Parts: sequence; C-alpha cells; structure tokens
Amino acid sequence: MSSFSRCAACKYLRRKCPQDCILAPYFPSSNPQRFVCVHKIFGASNVTKMLQQVPGHLRAEAAECISYEAIARVQDPVYGCVGIITQLQQQISQIHSEIMKTKGEMIAHHCAHSQHHPPPQPQGDPSWSISLHQQQQDYSQSDEHLLRKY
Amino acid sequence: MSSFSRCAACKYLRRKCPQDCILAPYFPSSNPQRFVCVHKIFGASNVTKMLQQVPGHLRAEAAECISYEAIARVQDPVYGCVGIITQLQQQISQIHSEIMKTKGEMIAHHCAHSQHHPPPQPQGDPSWSISLHQQQQDYSQSDEHLLRKY
Repeated sequence: MSSFSRCAACKYLRRKCPQDCILAPYFPSSNPQRFVCVHKIFGASNVTKMLQQVPGHLRAEAAECISYEAIARVQDPVYGCVGIITQLQQQISQIHSEIMKTKGEMIAHHCAHSQHHPPPQPQGDPSWSISLHQQQQDYSQSDEHLLRKY
Repeated sequence: MSSFSRCAACKYLRRKCPQDCILAPYFPSSNPQRFVCVHKIFGASNVTKMLQQVPGHLRAEAAECISYEAIARVQDPVYGCVGIITQLQQQISQIHSEIMKTKGEMIAHHCAHSQHHPPPQPQGDPSWSISLHQQQQDYSQSDEHLLRKY
C-alpha cells in the first residue's frame, strides 16, 4: 500500500504503510476510529503480534473480535466484554427460572385435570428442560475451566 | 511493597515494586501466570493506564475483567471473549426456538382437549414468552449499538 493510501493504523502511527502491512486489510483508512480504540486498549505492537500468530484465513475474524473487545472496553472501562458476558449469563439464568416456574404451573394444571380425566402418558422431562439444563452446565463448566487454570 | 515482596507484575518486569504500585493489589506474586497473560495481550503500560482511568473502588473488578479477557484470548487467539459471547447468544437463540416449539405443542394439546371440554380462559402470551422476546431484543440492540458507532 503506497504512502498515499495508508491504512488507518499506519496513518495514525504516522508511518509508511508497506505493501505487506499486516494491519492494512483489517483497518482500512475509511474507519479510523476502529484502530484508535484497538490501539488504545491493546497497542499496535500487541495487535500485530496477535494477528501474526493466527493463520491467515482466520485473521479477518480475529481482527473483528479484537476490535469488538476494544470498543466494548472503551465504552465500559470497568467491565468491557465481560459485562456483556455477565448480562447474557443473567438472561439465561432468568429464562431458566421462568421455564421452571412455567413447568410448575403446567404440572399443577395437569394434576388438576387428572382428578377428572385419565392421567397423561408418562413423558419424563420435556426435551427443552433437559437441553437447557445441559446448556447451563456447559457454560458454567467452560467458565470454571477458564478460571481454574489461572 | 519492598523489593523482597514484589508483585507479579514488577517481578515479571524485573523492576522495583513501589509502595504505591497500582498493579500490586490485583496481581499478587502468588499468581504470576495471570499477569503473564495480561501482559501478553494488553501490555503492562496499557493495563496501568486502564486501571488509572477507573475509580479506585472499581479497580479490583476492572482488573478481574481485564484478566478474564486476556486469559480468554490466550486460550482462543482468534475469538477470545467474543467466542464466549457468541456461544451464549447461540444458547439463548436455541432456548428460544425450543420454547417456541414447546409452546406450539401446548397449543396443540389445548386444541385437542377443547374438542371435548370447554376452551381454557384466554391468557395471552405466557409471561416467559414476552420477557424472552424482550431479552432477545435487549441483547440484539446492545450489540447493534456497539457496532454501529465504530
């Protein structure tokens, strides 16, 4: 890339943008603010290293995720991306509570009807209840795994 | 903190640990690996700046979240924390689909029964259905908001 069409990173860092600039494909000059956030949070050197260690075909996705994390931390300097994770976990927990409540109401409804009619066929837990329980375990375990190692 | 009990950050950076070291309370020498991850992803200078810009009473939480993000990126160099966010969003979407399916089965069950018995009282959408819909909108909107600005 010539010095006349430097990428957002090279422009911000006031340097020439080489032909093989690793940042250029992911930080075009059309979106300078994106690199400002990434530079503020990670630093150009760290971002370059992070992209270098990822296979070429996955770099675009890595750059996208790095930018997302940087923007989240600029917008929320205390919690960053972890604030979004916590919010989603709370949503799942809340949905789980509401499903359990609804399940209780359904059982009560069945019991009330079964006093007048034959009992329903045994069905075990509804499929969504089992898979939700499994999902809850999945994400809890992945978090525990993440924290246990460090 | 004396040079004999340097924090993990100062020990790693081979420097004296001053009395007022901003990193010391959050990166104790007992957990050196945590600082190694944070240093690799953000760099000591950026972490120091990020903690400085957060009020004192929120620094412990900020350091916790910064460490969580760094560990997630070390473990998953392409997606990092965003991989966890995507996974949780997929879980919510899957639960939503399963709830819709169960709701359809409940309606079919009611319809089958109502051929022999009086129809149930009109109830509108169950509360969990409404709040789930609201939650889905909430997190979709927050993501859009995040991406729209940059």
